[in-house]
Amino acid sequence: MAGVKIYGKPISTCTARVLLCLEEVGAEYQLVSINMPSGEHKGPAHLARNPFGQIPALEDGDLVLFESRAISKYVLRKYKESGTDLLKEGNLAESAMVEVWLEAESQQYNPAISPIVWQSLIVPKMYGGTPDQAIIDSSLEKLKKVLEVYEARLSKSKYLAGNFFSLADLSHFPFTRYLMITPYASVFESYPHVKAWWEDITSRPAFKKVSAGMLGS
Amino acid sequence: MAGVKIYGKPISTCTARVLLCLEEVGAEYQLVSINMPSGEHKGPAHLARNPFGQIPALEDGDLVLFESRAISKYVLRKYKESGTDLLKEGNLAESAMVEVWLEAESQQYNPAISPIVWQSLIVPKMYGGTPDQAIIDSSLEKLKKVLEVYEARLSKSKYLAGNFFSLADLSHFPFTRYLMITPYASVFESYPHVKAWWEDITSRPAFKKVSAGMLGS
Ligand SMILES: N[C@@H](CCC(=O)N[C@@H](CS)C(=O)NCC(=O)O)C(=O)O
Ligand SMILES: N[C@@H](CCC(=O)N[C@@H](CS)C(=O)NCC(=O)O)C(=O)O
Repeated sequence: MAGVKIYGKPISTCTARVLLCLEEVGAEYQLVSINMPSGEHKGPAHLARNPFGQIPALEDGDLVLFESRAISKYVLRKYKESGTDLLKEGNLAESAMVEVWLEAESQQYNPAISPIVWQSLIVPKMYGGTPDQAIIDSSLEKLKKVLEVYEARLSKSKYLAGNFFSLADLSHFPFTRYLMITPYASVFESYPHVKAWWEDITSRPAFKKVSAGMLGS
Repeated sequence: MAGVKIYGKPISTCTARVLLCLEEVGAEYQLVSINMPSGEHKGPAHLARNPFGQIPALEDGDLVLFESRAISKYVLRKYKESGTDLLKEGNLAESAMVEVWLEAESQQYNPAISPIVWQSLIVPKMYGGTPDQAIIDSSLEKLKKVLEVYEARLSKSKYLAGNFFSLADLSHFPFTRYLMITPYASVFESYPHVKAWWEDITSRPAFKKVSAGMLGS
């Protein structure tokens, strides 16, 4: 048994989220590459894994999962005996705060940051296109409002869900990692607690390892 | 002790998600109305509950939570002794499927259905505006693709996460409830298993009760 199989690409943000979890718990896993330019993610074999035709997907015996945040939770639950507890499900209040800030990532942070990364990095680097500056500008305004909330939060606790590192923090990594190699990285300079939090999480061994497989390394 | 306090409005989709959970587990709760037209959700008292200035928020003693899907999980965990288990956290595979289809709701279904409801119901009824037909049309195309995936899934299991009703099903209620009173309700007619699933979940007593407080009742 070579552990779970994860279908995706290390450069993809959603795959990186899952890889970080696997690295944090020290799980054995096999990364199976999906050839996106040839459309493999829309072919029957991959659609059987993820009916929405996206990466990542996870296979663990008969169990097949998709959606990176759902896969992440499964990995963290399955390997909770590893000693790395990023969900705090043994504590009702702590687990609630993990869910709150994981939702903040998915519902507030991600919609603001992802168009900036898409327009300023993916469009020119991967498609040879021209970034849409209006989208970048309006998303930057949204992101600043979100970062103000994060700054206030991180001036009261070391991490988002409390004074412990959790999936909520981890889940912010992939898009932030890419923002940092765009011309808009400097937006973080105005938020000292957010910046310190970012430096803290990027110093973790799992982050260094996964980061090395992403664009711009 | 009068149970948890929930700040919001019964007509709001995100508030309705949490109310459904409270009704399903039979919890005692107090609904505190937030006056949105007067901007109460952007005032200091509410920002202390939800720094993003949105409804709903939950207060349970010292614990203050926001984001409807996070609050929903907290409610279902807190009252799991009620005998209603909509998370299946005692079973690794079942809980994973609940997370997968809850993410499908949040990441795939919601982005497709919410602009249709917003444009065809909220804009004209609540703001006296004119719907943007181009947004409605492109969202309908997206929604049909999502519904094809749901149709295939629901032809294999009675509910989204398996043969048991869960938070994943429940979470689809609020926006679908509103789609059904727009001119686009008929889109469901092409997906018989989705339609049967919808009729099943809307027959639950909790759904009838929460539905009665929403627009169009
Ligand atoms: N909500 C999904 C999003 C997955 C996603 O957008 N994956 C991208 C790569 S990062 C993809 O497969 N894109 C191809 C497509 O959507 O057709 C998740 O978190 O897993
Ligand atoms: N992701 C949030 C969304 C909350 C949300 O959009 N609430 C709406 C009412 S349904 C609101 O408060 N809108 C006012 C605003 O965003 O300023 C959740 O699930 O709780």
